Amino acid sequence: MSHMIRDKQKLLARVRRLRGQVESIERALEGEAGCEQVMHLIAGARGAMAGLMAEVVEDHVRTHLVDAERYPGALNNEAAEQLLDVVRTYLK
Amino acid sequence: MSHMIRDKQKLLARVRRLRGQVESIERALEGEAGCEQVMHLIAGARGAMAGLMAEVVEDHVRTHLVDAERYPGALNNEAAEQLLDVVRTYLK
Amino acid sequence: MSHMIRDKQKLLARVRRLRGQVESIERALEGEAGCEQVMHLIAGARGAMAGLMAEVVEDHVRTHLVDAERYPGALNNEAAEQLLDVVRTYLK
Amino acid sequence: MSHMIRDKQKLLARVRRLRGQVESIERALEGEAGCEQVMHLIAGARGAMAGLMAEVVEDHVRTHLVDAERYPGALNNEAAEQLLDVVRTYLK
Repeated sequence: MSHMIRDKQKLLARVRRLRGQVESIERALEGEAGCEQVMHLIAGARGAMAGLMAEVVEDHVRTHLVDAERYPGALNNEAAEQLLDVVRTYLK
Repeated sequence: MSHMIRDKQKLLARVRRLRGQVESIERALEGEAGCEQVMHLIAGARGAMAGLMAEVVEDHVRTHLVDAERYPGALNNEAAEQLLDVVRTYLK
Repeated sequence: MSHMIRDKQKLLARVRRLRGQVESIERALEGEAGCEQVMHLIAGARGAMAGLMAEVVEDHVRTHLVDAERYPGALNNEAAEQLLDVVRTYLK
Repeated sequence: MSHMIRDKQKLLARVRRLRGQVESIERALEGEAGCEQVMHLIAGARGAMAGLMAEVVEDHVRTHLVDAERYPGALNNEAAEQLLDVVRTYLK
C-alpha cells in the first residue's frame, strides 16, 4: 500500500484521534454520564470515522485503480473527483 | 455517457420504480395514513434510491475512470471491485 | 394521524418536491445526461428524502409517543429534542 | 442516567469491542496493510459504532422520554417501537 507510506502519518493521526474519541465514550459510560453526552460523543466519533474512511477511499482511488507506472495518465482525474464527491456525500 | 446507453433500460426501470414509491408516499399522506406506514414507505424508497445510486456509481467506475479504448486493461478490476464493495456498504 | 392533518400541507409540499426531483433523474437518464449530472441529481433527491423522513419522525415523536390528552406534560421535551438531534445527524 | 446503570455492562462491552476494532485499524495502518484490509476494518468498526448508538438511543427512548415514575404507562410502547425500527434502519 505504497500511498499509505506517503499518507501514513496523516492517517495514523486520524485513527489515533478516533481512538481517543472512543476512549471518551468508554469513560463517559463508566462515569455514568447522561445519555445526551454519550449520544453526542458517539455522533462525533462517527464523524471522525467517516472522515478516516473518506481519506482511505480517496487514497485507494487515486493510487490503486490504475497502476500509474504502467499506465501513466490513464486515470481520468475529473471522473475520479466526481466519484469522490459522491462518496464524501454518502460518508457524511 | 456511453455506458448509460447500454444500461439505460435497467436504470430507467429502477428510477420509474422509485417514482412509483414516491407517489405512494404522496398518496399515503393525502389519505392521512398512519405515521408508521409513511415512515415504512419512506424507508423503502430510500433503499430504492440507494440502489439506484449504487448502480450509477458502479457504471461510472467501470466506464469513466479509465478511457478503455485509449488505455485498454489499465483499470485494476480487483481494486475497482474493492472500492464498490465499500460504496455499497455505505449506500445501504 | 392527527398531527399529519396539521402538518399535512408541509409534508405534501416536501413529497411533491421530491417527486419532481425523481422525475428530473428520470428525464436525465432518458436524455442520456452525463454520469456526473445523474449522480448529482440523485444526491439532491436523497437529501430531500432524508429531510422528509426527519420531519415525519419529528411529528411522530412529538405526537405519538405520548397521548397528550390522557397524559398532558408527560413527554420530556428536552429528551425528545436530544433524540431528534441524533436522528437528524444520522438522516443527513 | 439510571437505565445506564442497568445496561452499563452491556454498553461497556460494546464500546470496548469497538475500541479493539479501532486499535486494529491503527495496527493495520502501522503495519502498512493493504487498502482493502483497512477499508474492511473501518467498515466493521462503523457497524459496531452504529450498533452502540442504536442501543444508547433505544435506552434513551425507553427511559428518558417519559418519567415513568411520575407518568406510569404514558409512553406508547408501540409508537416507540416504530420509531426505533426507523432509527435502526438509518443507523445501519
